[in-house]
Amino acid sequence: MSDRPDNRQFRLARRPKGLPERDDFELKHEPLRAAETGEVRVAVDFISLDPAMRGWMNEGRSYIKPVGIGEVMRAGAAGTVIDSEHDDFQPGDKVTGNLGVQTHCVFPGDQLRKVDTQLAELPVYLGALGMPGMTAYFGLLEVGALAEGDTVLVSAASGAVGALVGQIAKKKGCHVVGIAGGPDKCGYIVDELGFDAAIDYKADDVMAGIRSHFPDGIDVYFDNVGGEMLDAALANLRLNARVVICGAISQYNVTGNVGDTAYAPKNYLSLLVNRARMEGFIVFDFTDRYPEAAKQMAQWIASGDLKHREDIVHGFETFPETLLRLFSGENFGKLVLAVDD
Amino acid sequence: MSDRPDNRQFRLARRPKGLPERDDFELKHEPLRAAETGEVRVAVDFISLDPAMRGWMNEGRSYIKPVGIGEVMRAGAAGTVIDSEHDDFQPGDKVTGNLGVQTHCVFPGDQLRKVDTQLAELPVYLGALGMPGMTAYFGLLEVGALAEGDTVLVSAASGAVGALVGQIAKKKGCHVVGIAGGPDKCGYIVDELGFDAAIDYKADDVMAGIRSHFPDGIDVYFDNVGGEMLDAALANLRLNARVVICGAISQYNVTGNVGDTAYAPKNYLSLLVNRARMEGFIVFDFTDRYPEAAKQMAQWIASGDLKHREDIVHGFETFPETLLRLFSGENFGKLVLAVDD
Repeated sequence: MSDRPDNRQFRLARRPKGLPERDDFELKHEPLRAAETGEVRVAVDFISLDPAMRGWMNEGRSYIKPVGIGEVMRAGAAGTVIDSEHDDFQPGDKVTGNLGVQTHCVFPGDQLRKVDTQLAELPVYLGALGMPGMTAYFGLLEVGALAEGDTVLVSAASGAVGALVGQIAKKKGCHVVGIAGGPDKCGYIVDELGFDAAIDYKADDVMAGIRSHFPDGIDVYFDNVGGEMLDAALANLRLNARVVICGAISQYNVTGNVGDTAYAPKNYLSLLVNRARMEGFIVFDFTDRYPEAAKQMAQWIASGDLKHREDIVHGFETFPETLLRLFSGENFGKLVLAVDD
Repeated sequence: MSDRPDNRQFRLARRPKGLPERDDFELKHEPLRAAETGEVRVAVDFISLDPAMRGWMNEGRSYIKPVGIGEVMRAGAAGTVIDSEHDDFQPGDKVTGNLGVQTHCVFPGDQLRKVDTQLAELPVYLGALGMPGMTAYFGLLEVGALAEGDTVLVSAASGAVGALVGQIAKKKGCHVVGIAGGPDKCGYIVDELGFDAAIDYKADDVMAGIRSHFPDGIDVYFDNVGGEMLDAALANLRLNARVVICGAISQYNVTGNVGDTAYAPKNYLSLLVNRARMEGFIVFDFTDRYPEAAKQMAQWIASGDLKHREDIVHGFETFPETLLRLFSGENFGKLVLAVDD
């Protein structure tokens, strides 16, 4: 590798309307500058592709500044240290951070996290041991206030977050049902992950499925999808239920604003009848407590008690099309873009 | 009064579709039987008319059993003891209880509450010192988790519950804005009750009004109305906001089910962006703590710090039409039906 490697970047060229397209991004090449004091140069190996990225492309008030036009698209990523002007990092170290959709970067060492690839392979630090893992852990246990024996429904149940939510709920002695698309994913969550049952939204009537699996109602609904699934869950809540709003992937591409939805939950008054609550959260609010969750998740993974699955697509330049796999339901597990071509 | 007075009753004849009509009820006369051991005979003086009554008329799963066809319509009421076979009650005592829409009743003494008409007139025990008062107190302070200095929005702000919510929030040092219909009600909540501002939903653009009064967003929205007002409030939440779902009077008559709504809140994803929660409650869940709230409310009323207003309509047999004042926005204050003709 030369001292000034060619850094390829996807920069946001314009704000997508609906599903993002290749022309919403510009692929730029620029030489990587040298690291200054406190900085580290990183060759990016894996880029995390997450539903939240769609929201970051929109203008307007949200929980985080939108990506500016002309800026490198924001993304979590994992890579290898090239060289370092920060005492904590040595060439060859494996690191994760908010590195963006690019093949290389110069990054402040204080914003990098060194990871142990003896414990788990690097892409796992973008999944079960990364943001999706933290999201599942805090969303279910803190926001969802999970109690032993609860009945739990999870949407996008074979996805990066949903698969972990269901497994954690099983560890807490809960009755867990997942909603997923197609027999492969439904089989996976039941046979491999130990969910009690699956509802195949492509084949089954979701409302009828929920009714039959939750004759006494749902205690915790962990929602990644929104739309009709949320509405069907609302219609089947138990007294004092908690609806955790983690995402709404069915709705992100419908309008230009994250706050807007095309399918609004007409059954929301079930919250009143059942004295239930529906609560949104952002995993970044739990940053201070990541170590606690990461330690627990790592123990479960080391002991084989928590399974994880990465869906790795190779080829940096496929980024715009690979991202769409999230919204089509094509991906199976944590979607990761491998930079190698 | 004879020993077997003529008891007039409105019994539910069929389940209303949309707004209740006179023919949904049957007016029956029947003689009042004698009280048995533990029972008390009561001449009803005032009947509480509340939005929740609409829900009780619907079939289906809810927080309380629907009123059966042929049963006396359920209602809170206040009256005077005629005679008593219960040690705690004497003829002439003033009492409240779930007496129903009827002019007289025989009731278990253990389910009656004796009230002090030196402290407040009898109808007040159906309003500020009754269910609406308890609803405002626990809904705002417990469910809404009100904190000093919060920004608070209340819908149906001149109504039985809303007027109390706003005044309690002012006592806690909050910035309080109410939504009400027409200049009289808007003037009342600002000039008489001390709200900081009013939004007249009949004259103003509610969304624009909320934006201008809450430039930094809403901490607590206390919702009695649902529909577009809820959606406009959702679009203007502050970080960690609480949306208290007390009712949805705009939606009760639209469909046959309390859980259904015609206008669903499309901006619910604001809960995610703002890490906010939307929570329903039923005042009956706080029954054990009523004495605490009643004591505080009575103190505020005695000192003149909490104003209350009853909208008393005379004539028992006007019940079906008088009830509709709740849904047309006609009533101004706590709606009470006086039994005297």
